[in-house]
Amino acid sequence: MANSAVVGVVGATGAVGAEVVKVLHDRKFPLAEVKLFASERSADRQVATPFGASTIRRFEADAARGCDIVFLCVSGDFAREHAKPLAQKALVIDNSSAFRLSPDVPLVIPEINPQALKGHRLIANPNCTMAVAAMALWPLHRAFGIRKAIIASYQAASGAGAEGITELLEGAKAYLAGEPVPNSVFAHPLAFNVVPHIDRFLDNGYTNEEMKVALEMRKVFGEPDLAVSCTAVRVPTIRAHAEAITIETEKPVTPAAAREVLAKAKGVRVVDDPATRTYPMPITAGERYDVDVGRIRTSLIFGANGLDLFVCGDQLLKGAALNAVQIAEQMI
Amino acid sequence: MANSAVVGVVGATGAVGAEVVKVLHDRKFPLAEVKLFASERSADRQVATPFGASTIRRFEADAARGCDIVFLCVSGDFAREHAKPLAQKALVIDNSSAFRLSPDVPLVIPEINPQALKGHRLIANPNCTMAVAAMALWPLHRAFGIRKAIIASYQAASGAGAEGITELLEGAKAYLAGEPVPNSVFAHPLAFNVVPHIDRFLDNGYTNEEMKVALEMRKVFGEPDLAVSCTAVRVPTIRAHAEAITIETEKPVTPAAAREVLAKAKGVRVVDDPATRTYPMPITAGERYDVDVGRIRTSLIFGANGLDLFVCGDQLLKGAALNAVQIAEQMI
Repeated sequence: MANSAVVGVVGATGAVGAEVVKVLHDRKFPLAEVKLFASERSADRQVATPFGASTIRRFEADAARGCDIVFLCVSGDFAREHAKPLAQKALVIDNSSAFRLSPDVPLVIPEINPQALKGHRLIANPNCTMAVAAMALWPLHRAFGIRKAIIASYQAASGAGAEGITELLEGAKAYLAGEPVPNSVFAHPLAFNVVPHIDRFLDNGYTNEEMKVALEMRKVFGEPDLAVSCTAVRVPTIRAHAEAITIETEKPVTPAAAREVLAKAKGVRVVDDPATRTYPMPITAGERYDVDVGRIRTSLIFGANGLDLFVCGDQLLKGAALNAVQIAEQMI
Repeated sequence: MANSAVVGVVGATGAVGAEVVKVLHDRKFPLAEVKLFASERSADRQVATPFGASTIRRFEADAARGCDIVFLCVSGDFAREHAKPLAQKALVIDNSSAFRLSPDVPLVIPEINPQALKGHRLIANPNCTMAVAAMALWPLHRAFGIRKAIIASYQAASGAGAEGITELLEGAKAYLAGEPVPNSVFAHPLAFNVVPHIDRFLDNGYTNEEMKVALEMRKVFGEPDLAVSCTAVRVPTIRAHAEAITIETEKPVTPAAAREVLAKAKGVRVVDDPATRTYPMPITAGERYDVDVGRIRTSLIFGANGLDLFVCGDQLLKGAALNAVQIAEQMI
């Protein structure tokens, strides 16, 4: 690959695609050109990007194959059709869940398992909720050995794309005006509500989102037997996911030791000073690269071998676009 | 006590006090008279109640002592000063946390430990988050024996009183207008945010709210060693608290067996049909007496000896006013 890459962003008009373009610019990714692809519906539209005004191209496989790197920020169905053919010529980073659990496709968080990238041209970018949790848990796992992780999420509207954010804001306006709150993106009205239902339900009673968190974390950590569970809940926040996590560890752990480990971890910010009302929150973790970790305390359940913590990270950044661009950085 | 009681509601202009008056009316509590007490600031104000217009009286201990039953819907400091003297003549049901953990004061949820009321004239009404969780967990505890309960809460603005609801709604309006979101009731702006901080922080890193959940559940269940933990999080909802709960049980338990037990439990409604997008949510659990329980599934952590569930109950009703009135019903 040349020193400067021709990069394609497929799904460039979506929330994640737009964020990928911003992150490429912000991180000074060595670019020759960025080509923005979307569906027929958006083709020829002019969009503002940090690189200047750009024209959206209708996706065509041949044109995309001419790129050095392709970010797929589209549906799993689209990825299943196009990712492997594209990867014959381009490096493909797929943000959908289509290939995340495929044994022949690596699922990568560069701070955790960059070695998995080697020799691959199609890489899966992980689920946002899993990625945010994993950033906090991996350093603790390496230091103390996590046996169990019990997660309850507080997931932002952005997880359902730009339409999700719009539906939340329009819904809040309607509620405040005393009008009925419509919903089509979310299963129920989200404004002033919480909805314990993200993605479809599976036969075991968990949602697909919840099982993604459990199964993807095992794959990224390389721990096929790690006990992870999640209750995934949509809450009326804009774009940063929060998570309450309880862990049981093999080795004894103290909050101070955990903070020390996390303070050294790349991509993590320890935000943990109750005396000054400092802890992770969506309004302070949003539009930031680092995942915030705080409320670190000895578990009342697992005692000296456990911790409770609260994490918060931008769903569109470490939960999607940032991680995807970091993968590309590792590969060039 | 006469068949019809003279009832005093102290703090009648607050969110819980106003709700107590509504519940007394709705449940046709055998009343001779309801006297509404509040601070100097509200004295002589006329308020609409389901019993008709009523005049707020300035609280005076002698006048309150003339009541048969007094509901204290005020601060812990106020309760510490007045509850025991009042209880020399009246039955006193205190909604504050002042006496909840006192060995000589019963802490009661009538569906769980009504026997604790016997011989007492001062009764503590439990924490709202604990009460909502306990309604779901007690029937499961009796049937399967709960060893561990790990709770993450999604607590509504009403937990901070009427001022909390107002601050949330005004904050949402400000946010939507592109203006800064002020906060004084909550530690941080709550609109479009979640705040993992309710009540003050303790030395062990937990908040007082979180420890109330753990310690009060042990007392109500009569299980001083029950392992309970909580991460208490304020979310931008109006008045129903939701909670994601993971339990480990002594006996094996299936979701079907749990549903059967919960379906028979008084004060609980099983709301658990994912196929029709039916599960507990604040917008459907609010302004209802029952606590909703759903998302019941086998725990990925504890296997056949564990469950995950999601519960939701009205913070002002089972979490406060309803439980208080139910206590009074048991005592007359």
